Amino acid sequence: MVLEIADIRIHPGQQADFEAAIQRGLATVISQARGYLRSQVQHCMETPERYVLMIEWATLEDHTEHFRGGPLFPQWRAIVGPFFAQPPLVEHFQALG
Amino acid sequence: MVLEIADIRIHPGQQADFEAAIQRGLATVISQARGYLRSQVQHCMETPERYVLMIEWATLEDHTEHFRGGPLFPQWRAIVGPFFAQPPLVEHFQALG
Repeated sequence: MVLEIADIRIHPGQQADFEAAIQRGLATVISQARGYLRSQVQHCMETPERYVLMIEWATLEDHTEHFRGGPLFPQWRAIVGPFFAQPPLVEHFQALG
Repeated sequence: MVLEIADIRIHPGQQADFEAAIQRGLATVISQARGYLRSQVQHCMETPERYVLMIEWATLEDHTEHFRGGPLFPQWRAIVGPFFAQPPLVEHFQALG
Protein backbone atom coordinates (compact mmCIF):
# COMPACT_ATOMS: atom_id res chain seq x y z
CA MET A 1 0.00 0.00 0.00
CA VAL A 2 1.26 3.43 -1.01
CA LEU A 3 -0.16 6.80 0.00
CA GLU A 4 -0.13 9.58 -2.59
CA ILE A 5 -0.15 13.02 -0.95
CA ALA A 6 -0.92 15.96 -3.23
CA ASP A 7 -0.47 19.46 -1.83
CA ILE A 8 -2.83 21.68 -3.84
CA ARG A 9 -3.13 25.48 -4.05
CA ILE A 10 -6.14 26.83 -5.92
CA HIS A 11 -7.05 30.28 -7.16
CA PRO A 12 -8.62 32.43 -4.41
CA GLY A 13 -12.37 32.47 -4.08
CA GLN A 14 -13.01 29.23 -5.99
CA GLN A 15 -13.33 26.95 -2.96
CA ALA A 16 -16.97 25.91 -3.44
CA ASP A 17 -16.57 25.11 -7.14
CA PHE A 18 -13.28 23.29 -6.54
CA GLU A 19 -14.72 21.20 -3.73
CA ALA A 20 -17.61 20.09 -5.92
CA ALA A 21 -15.23 19.36 -8.79
CA ILE A 22 -12.69 17.32 -6.85
CA GLN A 23 -15.39 15.23 -5.22
CA ARG A 24 -16.92 14.59 -8.63
CA GLY A 25 -13.51 13.73 -10.08
CA LEU A 26 -12.81 11.27 -7.29
CA ALA A 27 -16.23 9.63 -7.57
CA THR A 28 -16.35 9.39 -11.36
CA VAL A 29 -12.70 9.06 -12.47
CA ILE A 30 -10.17 8.23 -9.76
CA SER A 31 -12.32 5.55 -8.17
CA GLN A 32 -12.32 3.69 -11.50
CA ALA A 33 -8.53 3.41 -11.58
CA ARG A 34 -6.72 0.10 -11.19
CA GLY A 35 -5.29 -0.22 -7.70
CA TYR A 36 -7.34 2.63 -6.24
CA LEU A 37 -8.20 1.86 -2.65
CA ARG A 38 -9.58 5.02 -0.99
CA SER A 39 -9.14 8.78 -0.81
CA GLN A 40 -9.78 11.82 1.32
CA VAL A 41 -9.63 15.56 0.75
CA GLN A 42 -8.55 17.83 3.57
CA HIS A 43 -9.12 21.62 3.54
CA CYS A 44 -6.63 23.87 5.31
CA MET A 45 -7.98 26.11 8.06
CA GLU A 46 -5.10 28.63 8.05
CA THR A 47 -4.65 28.84 4.26
CA PRO A 48 -8.08 28.61 2.58
CA GLU A 49 -6.60 28.08 -0.89
CA ARG A 50 -4.74 24.97 0.30
CA TYR A 51 -6.07 21.41 0.07
CA VAL A 52 -4.35 18.09 0.71
CA LEU A 53 -5.58 15.17 -1.34
CA MET A 54 -4.58 11.73 -0.12
CA ILE A 55 -5.12 8.64 -2.24
CA GLU A 56 -4.22 5.11 -1.22
CA TRP A 57 -3.03 2.91 -4.07
CA ALA A 58 -2.29 -0.79 -4.04
CA THR A 59 1.13 -0.17 -5.63
CA LEU A 60 3.23 2.83 -6.67
CA GLU A 61 2.93 1.79 -10.31
CA ASP A 62 -0.86 1.84 -10.15
CA HIS A 63 -0.56 5.62 -9.82
CA THR A 64 2.63 6.52 -11.63
CA GLU A 65 2.31 4.17 -14.61
CA HIS A 66 -1.21 2.81 -15.02
CA PHE A 67 -3.13 5.92 -13.96
CA ARG A 68 -0.83 8.63 -15.29
CA GLY A 69 -0.19 6.74 -18.50
CA GLY A 70 -3.81 5.81 -19.15
CA PRO A 71 -7.02 7.44 -20.35
CA LEU A 72 -8.30 8.43 -16.90
CA PHE A 73 -5.54 10.96 -16.24
CA PRO A 74 -6.63 13.58 -18.83
CA GLN A 75 -10.23 13.18 -17.64
CA TRP A 76 -9.15 13.91 -14.07
CA ARG A 77 -6.97 16.87 -15.01
CA ALA A 78 -9.77 18.36 -17.10
CA ILE A 79 -11.97 18.41 -13.98
CA VAL A 80 -9.53 19.71 -11.35
CA GLY A 81 -6.66 21.24 -13.33
CA PRO A 82 -8.33 24.61 -14.09
CA PHE A 83 -8.51 25.39 -10.37
CA PHE A 84 -4.79 24.92 -9.66
CA ALA A 85 -2.89 28.13 -8.96
CA GLN A 86 0.38 26.20 -9.39
CA PRO A 87 1.34 22.59 -10.13
CA PRO A 88 0.52 20.48 -7.04
CA LEU A 89 3.38 18.90 -5.11
CA VAL A 90 2.72 15.18 -5.42
CA GLU A 91 4.83 12.51 -3.72
CA HIS A 92 4.30 8.99 -2.42
CA PHE A 93 4.62 7.68 1.11
CA GLN A 94 4.74 4.54 3.17
CA ALA A 95 3.54 4.36 6.76
CA LEU A 96 6.05 3.84 9.54
CA GLY A 97 5.64 1.07 12.01
CA MET B 1 -12.23 16.75 14.71
CA VAL B 2 -9.19 18.55 13.27
CA LEU B 3 -6.26 17.04 11.40
CA GLU B 4 -2.82 18.49 12.02
CA ILE B 5 -0.48 17.90 9.08
CA ALA B 6 3.20 18.54 9.72
CA ASP B 7 5.56 18.48 6.74
CA ILE B 8 8.98 17.55 8.14
CA ARG B 9 12.45 17.62 6.56
CA ILE B 10 15.25 16.00 8.55
CA HIS B 11 19.00 16.05 8.19
CA PRO B 12 20.23 13.49 5.62
CA GLY B 13 21.24 10.06 6.87
CA GLN B 14 19.37 10.23 10.18
CA GLN B 15 16.27 8.33 9.09
CA ALA B 16 16.61 5.35 11.41
CA ASP B 17 17.28 7.45 14.50
CA PHE B 18 14.51 9.90 13.63
CA GLU B 19 11.98 7.14 13.05
CA ALA B 20 12.73 5.63 16.45
CA ALA B 21 12.56 9.06 18.08
CA ILE B 22 9.26 10.18 16.56
CA GLN B 23 7.59 6.90 17.40
CA ARG B 24 8.85 7.20 20.98
CA GLY B 25 7.68 10.81 21.16
CA LEU B 26 4.22 9.91 19.92
CA ALA B 27 3.92 6.98 22.32
CA THR B 28 5.26 8.70 25.41
CA VAL B 29 4.36 12.40 24.97
CA ILE B 30 1.80 13.21 22.25
CA SER B 31 -0.53 10.40 23.21
CA GLN B 32 -0.81 11.92 26.70
CA ALA B 33 -2.13 15.23 25.38
CA ARG B 34 -5.69 16.38 25.99
CA GLY B 35 -7.79 15.90 22.87
CA TYR B 36 -5.29 13.59 21.17
CA LEU B 37 -7.16 11.02 19.09
CA ARG B 38 -4.67 9.22 16.82
CA SER B 39 -1.61 9.74 14.67
CA GLN B 40 0.37 8.35 11.77
CA VAL B 41 3.80 8.98 10.33
CA GLN B 42 4.33 8.70 6.58
CA HIS B 43 7.80 8.45 4.98
CA CYS B 44 8.33 9.89 1.52
CA MET B 45 9.57 7.52 -1.17
CA GLU B 46 10.91 10.20 -3.58
CA THR B 47 12.50 12.45 -0.91
CA PRO B 48 13.96 10.27 1.88
CA GLU B 49 14.47 13.23 4.22
CA ARG B 50 10.74 14.05 4.09
CA TYR B 51 8.13 12.79 6.54
CA VAL B 52 4.49 13.76 6.98
CA LEU B 53 3.13 13.51 10.51
CA MET B 54 -0.65 13.56 10.85
CA ILE B 55 -2.33 13.94 14.22
CA GLU B 56 -6.07 13.99 14.81
CA TRP B 57 -7.18 16.28 17.62
CA ALA B 58 -10.62 16.68 19.11
CA THR B 59 -10.44 20.48 18.66
CA LEU B 60 -8.02 23.00 17.17
CA GLU B 61 -7.36 24.47 20.62
CA ASP B 62 -6.30 21.09 21.98
CA HIS B 63 -3.25 21.42 19.74
CA THR B 64 -2.65 25.14 19.45
CA GLU B 65 -3.40 26.18 23.04
CA HIS B 66 -3.40 23.22 25.41
CA PHE B 67 -0.58 21.24 23.85
CA ARG B 68 1.66 24.05 22.60
CA GLY B 69 1.13 26.05 25.79
CA GLY B 70 1.62 23.18 28.18
CA PRO B 71 4.46 21.08 29.60
CA LEU B 72 4.30 18.34 26.95
CA PHE B 73 5.45 20.59 24.10
CA PRO B 74 9.07 21.06 25.24
CA GLN B 75 9.29 17.34 25.96
CA TRP B 76 8.17 16.57 22.40
CA ARG B 77 10.48 19.11 20.81
CA ALA B 78 13.44 17.80 22.80
CA ILE B 79 12.87 14.37 21.26
CA VAL B 80 12.24 15.29 17.61
CA GLY B 81 13.53 18.85 17.23
CA PRO B 82 17.24 17.98 16.83
CA PHE B 83 16.49 16.05 13.65
CA PHE B 84 14.70 18.90 11.84
CA ALA B 85 16.66 20.43 8.95
CA GLN B 86 14.20 23.35 8.94
CA PRO B 87 11.08 24.31 10.90
CA PRO B 88 8.25 21.95 9.88
CA LEU B 89 5.29 23.39 8.00
CA VAL B 90 2.36 22.73 10.34
CA GLU B 91 -1.26 23.57 9.48
CA HIS B 92 -4.68 22.24 10.41
CA PHE B 93 -7.33 20.70 8.20
CA GLN B 94 -10.91 19.60 8.09
CA ALA B 95 -12.16 16.77 5.88
CA LEU B 96 -14.46 17.55 2.98
CA GLY B 97 -17.75 15.82 2.62
